[in-house]
Amino acid sequence: MMISLKNDYSEGCHPRILDAMVRTNMEQTDGYGSDPYTAEACDLLRKKLQCPQADIHLFVSGTITNATMIAQMLRPYESVISPHTGHICTQETGAVESTGHKTMPVYSPDGKLTPQMIEDTIYIHTDFHRVIPKLAYITNPTEIGTLYTKEELKALSETCKKHNMYLYLDGARMGSALTSEANDIAPEDYAKYCDAFYFGGTKCGALFGEALIIVNPIFKENFMYMRKQMGSVLAKGRLLGIQFVELMKDGLYEELGAHANKLSMKIKHVIEECGFSVLQESFTNQQFPILPNAMVEELGKKYKMTFWDRHGDDHSVMRLVTCWATREENVDQFIADFREIAKNYPNK
Amino acid sequence: MMISLKNDYSEGCHPRILDAMVRTNMEQTDGYGSDPYTAEACDLLRKKLQCPQADIHLFVSGTITNATMIAQMLRPYESVISPHTGHICTQETGAVESTGHKTMPVYSPDGKLTPQMIEDTIYIHTDFHRVIPKLAYITNPTEIGTLYTKEELKALSETCKKHNMYLYLDGARMGSALTSEANDIAPEDYAKYCDAFYFGGTKCGALFGEALIIVNPIFKENFMYMRKQMGSVLAKGRLLGIQFVELMKDGLYEELGAHANKLSMKIKHVIEECGFSVLQESFTNQQFPILPNAMVEELGKKYKMTFWDRHGDDHSVMRLVTCWATREENVDQFIADFREIAKNYPNK
Amino acid sequence: MMISLKNDYSEGCHPRILDAMVRTNMEQTDGYGSDPYTAEACDLLRKKLQCPQADIHLFVSGTITNATMIAQMLRPYESVISPHTGHICTQETGAVESTGHKTMPVYSPDGKLTPQMIEDTIYIHTDFHRVIPKLAYITNPTEIGTLYTKEELKALSETCKKHNMYLYLDGARMGSALTSEANDIAPEDYAKYCDAFYFGGTKCGALFGEALIIVNPIFKENFMYMRKQMGSVLAKGRLLGIQFVELMKDGLYEELGAHANKLSMKIKHVIEECGFSVLQESFTNQQFPILPNAMVEELGKKYKMTFWDRHGDDHSVMRLVTCWATREENVDQFIADFREIAKNYPNK
Amino acid sequence: MMISLKNDYSEGCHPRILDAMVRTNMEQTDGYGSDPYTAEACDLLRKKLQCPQADIHLFVSGTITNATMIAQMLRPYESVISPHTGHICTQETGAVESTGHKTMPVYSPDGKLTPQMIEDTIYIHTDFHRVIPKLAYITNPTEIGTLYTKEELKALSETCKKHNMYLYLDGARMGSALTSEANDIAPEDYAKYCDAFYFGGTKCGALFGEALIIVNPIFKENFMYMRKQMGSVLAKGRLLGIQFVELMKDGLYEELGAHANKLSMKIKHVIEECGFSVLQESFTNQQFPILPNAMVEELGKKYKMTFWDRHGDDHSVMRLVTCWATREENVDQFIADFREIAKNYPNK
Repeated sequence: MMISLKNDYSEGCHPRILDAMVRTNMEQTDGYGSDPYTAEACDLLRKKLQCPQADIHLFVSGTITNATMIAQMLRPYESVISPHTGHICTQETGAVESTGHKTMPVYSPDGKLTPQMIEDTIYIHTDFHRVIPKLAYITNPTEIGTLYTKEELKALSETCKKHNMYLYLDGARMGSALTSEANDIAPEDYAKYCDAFYFGGTKCGALFGEALIIVNPIFKENFMYMRKQMGSVLAKGRLLGIQFVELMKDGLYEELGAHANKLSMKIKHVIEECGFSVLQESFTNQQFPILPNAMVEELGKKYKMTFWDRHGDDHSVMRLVTCWATREENVDQFIADFREIAKNYPNK
Repeated sequence: MMISLKNDYSEGCHPRILDAMVRTNMEQTDGYGSDPYTAEACDLLRKKLQCPQADIHLFVSGTITNATMIAQMLRPYESVISPHTGHICTQETGAVESTGHKTMPVYSPDGKLTPQMIEDTIYIHTDFHRVIPKLAYITNPTEIGTLYTKEELKALSETCKKHNMYLYLDGARMGSALTSEANDIAPEDYAKYCDAFYFGGTKCGALFGEALIIVNPIFKENFMYMRKQMGSVLAKGRLLGIQFVELMKDGLYEELGAHANKLSMKIKHVIEECGFSVLQESFTNQQFPILPNAMVEELGKKYKMTFWDRHGDDHSVMRLVTCWATREENVDQFIADFREIAKNYPNK
Repeated sequence: MMISLKNDYSEGCHPRILDAMVRTNMEQTDGYGSDPYTAEACDLLRKKLQCPQADIHLFVSGTITNATMIAQMLRPYESVISPHTGHICTQETGAVESTGHKTMPVYSPDGKLTPQMIEDTIYIHTDFHRVIPKLAYITNPTEIGTLYTKEELKALSETCKKHNMYLYLDGARMGSALTSEANDIAPEDYAKYCDAFYFGGTKCGALFGEALIIVNPIFKENFMYMRKQMGSVLAKGRLLGIQFVELMKDGLYEELGAHANKLSMKIKHVIEECGFSVLQESFTNQQFPILPNAMVEELGKKYKMTFWDRHGDDHSVMRLVTCWATREENVDQFIADFREIAKNYPNK
Repeated sequence: MMISLKNDYSEGCHPRILDAMVRTNMEQTDGYGSDPYTAEACDLLRKKLQCPQADIHLFVSGTITNATMIAQMLRPYESVISPHTGHICTQETGAVESTGHKTMPVYSPDGKLTPQMIEDTIYIHTDFHRVIPKLAYITNPTEIGTLYTKEELKALSETCKKHNMYLYLDGARMGSALTSEANDIAPEDYAKYCDAFYFGGTKCGALFGEALIIVNPIFKENFMYMRKQMGSVLAKGRLLGIQFVELMKDGLYEELGAHANKLSMKIKHVIEECGFSVLQESFTNQQFPILPNAMVEELGKKYKMTFWDRHGDDHSVMRLVTCWATREENVDQFIADFREIAKNYPNK
């Protein structure tokens, strides 16, 4: 049977979450997020983030989380700046544009936005013939495995404030970011530097779900109307509450992130050891080695991976992903095989 | 503890569904609906509907199902006709309009659309200063408990075809419709008369989920793009597949609908027996008695119900809902209490 | 040759306006409304309205004026209430919906909105499953020739304020309203009671153009961005400025409105004299007699009129319109012919 | 008094056009483009384009022309590729996005799109997580004065057809393109290679107006509905018809374009003679010299120009524009002054 290192959403969820769902199944609760589990999950998050004033909304999936929050943050003629690799630019089928807003991709080799990029964009948006850049969108970890430092996040936050802009952070893989050996951003820093952000569940051990945290109070008003209009309210909202209660209590979220990272670091090391280049160095649960196409084919007989991009005529950038459910023995076997096969490609 | 007759989404789901989720939890499957469970669910539905050529898409919830399908069916200047009671007019916060389309509510006391209503609307839409009525939206059962007959559905279908319009049916409570004693529409009739329709899961025993059936082939093209843009694709799409496999095999869907209806009929009979009026006679899982406000208050001490509308100064239209999870002893107790309390209101 | 009483936009414009265009043709001015003529026109309007703080924007036509202003006034989940006869409901091909907002038509036989209609609408919009009614849209004169009184306008304004709503008035035929014998609303009253409104030019003697007045300061911010995004900014904006300078100085606007009304009253009187019913009694430049179809046909050999609606099997509601360009001798001839032909229809 | 070389829309229109408006002013015609002048203008255009089957629509201005046509051509999840300099990317405040469609700017130093750029974009749009690139948008002349050759236009057309895409061309300054010494594209070539395109009036001698030509029959259906919804129909549509009749008969359009080009070439030559660089070599009515900031300031005392971009710390890219109304003696004086002032900047 094939071993999958293809993505972080191939399995269901951590068993503790399913247990909680089974346990509470026949309880009667109010709908649309007005249940005690959702309340408890939000409380746990507010504590973790040291942000008692945050409004927290639980969503089913990431694209609609981004689209709903961005629609809430912008007037029709306001736009969002994103690294060109940003999920809203590349993987959401124009969801932001479908709400009427321009996304402005900025070319960024490491997938990160910088204050300079924001200011360069503002510089050319001088009058009403152009949109108003009003929001900076970033992901952490980025889509290509890089991480912001606390200083970088702070600098972005300050740049946004200076230009009367907002900062929104997509944390689909936040479990990996928080527990990366390269990370120096604490949960409360996100609440300090962002106007809004989300902690992902779908790719971090939940069946599904993302926890959106609204810090800036001006975006709280009528947000349930925006959600309902965009079809992102779950009738049995408690299903999201139950999941985030489990993830956020007893450190389960971090435990699962750490597990994924640990296995990813093993893969990182074998790539380095064998002398292959990477798209970007990654200390998160995704690795992006640049491999000879023939080697990809060989590995592909046993392992599912994601093709990321061409790299010249003979190489490909591949994506290898670990997650809460990845078994260490599978990774070890992958490493052994990788090391063995790599020998056939001495020139890389 | 209060007994709830408030709605049909207060509990989780039928245990068989959760069992299946637990059983399959650690399997690795492809995402976004490309998994074998989704395939199996769609096959089961196609068989039930005797419609092998249907495209079937599983959604998480109803509002986004309606908005996505309607957006797929219409060009920007085309509009949708709906009874004024229609879910898209009253309970979806303008989701259809948010995609740019006008909804045209037609006043309908019994919540049903008729060919005459369609033709009256077409009559006044004569040129490019007005939108083009292109789609008729109906629900079965309606939001107020009424049911279409097969003849009525057929007549609507023919009227739509005659005027180059489409027919879309929202079956959020289809489990109740299919098993109502007043029903004469077979599953395959929906496929025969509608261009698209959905069979609801959320209110019919699933944790969440609606199965959208696209019969008219012109709407199949690129539908996954529309879904993704509107944020209505679930990464772990199999969660929907697993649920609909359970609901659609071995008659579970019908069994749960029949259970809800049976208990609702008990409530219907006590309302009649005690001589109260109703908003509309209902053979589905929702009853809408018109009760004195004082009686509502008394009942409200023990039973959760939904306030539906004012009825003069002293009465209210109340909504009483049963579902797959409603326990017969609770309904029996409600009936006994209702009968007792009603004695205090001899003049209704 | 046929004489047209069909509408108020069949000719070009009052000669004084064309003269001014010719006179200024080779001057170089800044674009997009930054020219001295636009500034002067806005000043004249601010004086007429006794509203020095108003922001005034000149548009080319009415539909885009309404759509742009309404989009500026609403968040996505907010909606606009309108009489069912309102121009935005019936003659703009869903332009408001195309910007994402629901319009909520309220049935109103005389085409006017009342405080009660607003409150009835608010009553049923109780939570986030429904849009928020945030704006009342009215026209004066209405599309069917009726007029608001100052008391009615004031009452609507107060109702809107009470419910944290806004009031927007479409004055496409304002020239007729201001000079109607039934009018008691002064120009400054519009500025007093409305958050925004427009004085029409296209139907009141201009080549084209509508002057939008924004009174409520919260809607002024970034409005040029909204206009540009909706494509409603004219490069040679001075063409609008020049026209409104002419219309607003020396009382030309009122002179043209009074001319149209005077001729319309003549038509009104012959309709009454001959004993025909009307859709609504009108003291504006539009009359809506209900005439036997055979009589319509006879009149139609010589006069262009607009068919408005069926009225039973044998009658039609017709629209007869006068304007700044209508010649009195043509109206006199129409009256004579009408009187003569009417004799053949003794039973009306 | 300052002499303006700032843009091509500072004056009114060619006197022949105003004469025609005056001459026809009191005629009564049907509205919304159903008048004989519009019909005649469209016939003249169809002849010039040798495209009898074209649908032609006259618009007031360019942004709304682009937005309306692009909205007609695309489904919600389809997107438009444009050079990064394209008017829809840079000067329309997100008008295309406001209709829900993503624009995809491709970096292009000379402002032109190539088949390779299209194919590179298609390459990364592989599945439903991304939009479908369905339309290529180009301008001729481009915003920075470059021109496509017939071969280039043909190659783009073939690339689009090959990939089931459409080609739309924005000809806001078509009068300059058609009469440029570097041009080899005949009017009929546009009809041959584009699915739709427009011939601009506003910047080519009209008061206002753009003539949109729809060649591909699939976009003709219901286009008036799309126009009306987007507020781009003029009640007195004949005003557009009258203008385009004048422009398109007797070669006036080309005469005015040739005049602008002739003066622009004079400016081009003095820039070259004095040894200054340009952003791109231009054979159209716009020149983009790169000048020392101090020189810009000196010239700016007498001549209005448009600042285009920074160029290092000490230089600026300036835009100099001629048009139908530019007087040769003013250009000659500019050239003399330019030559004189340039002497102070021997190092460029």
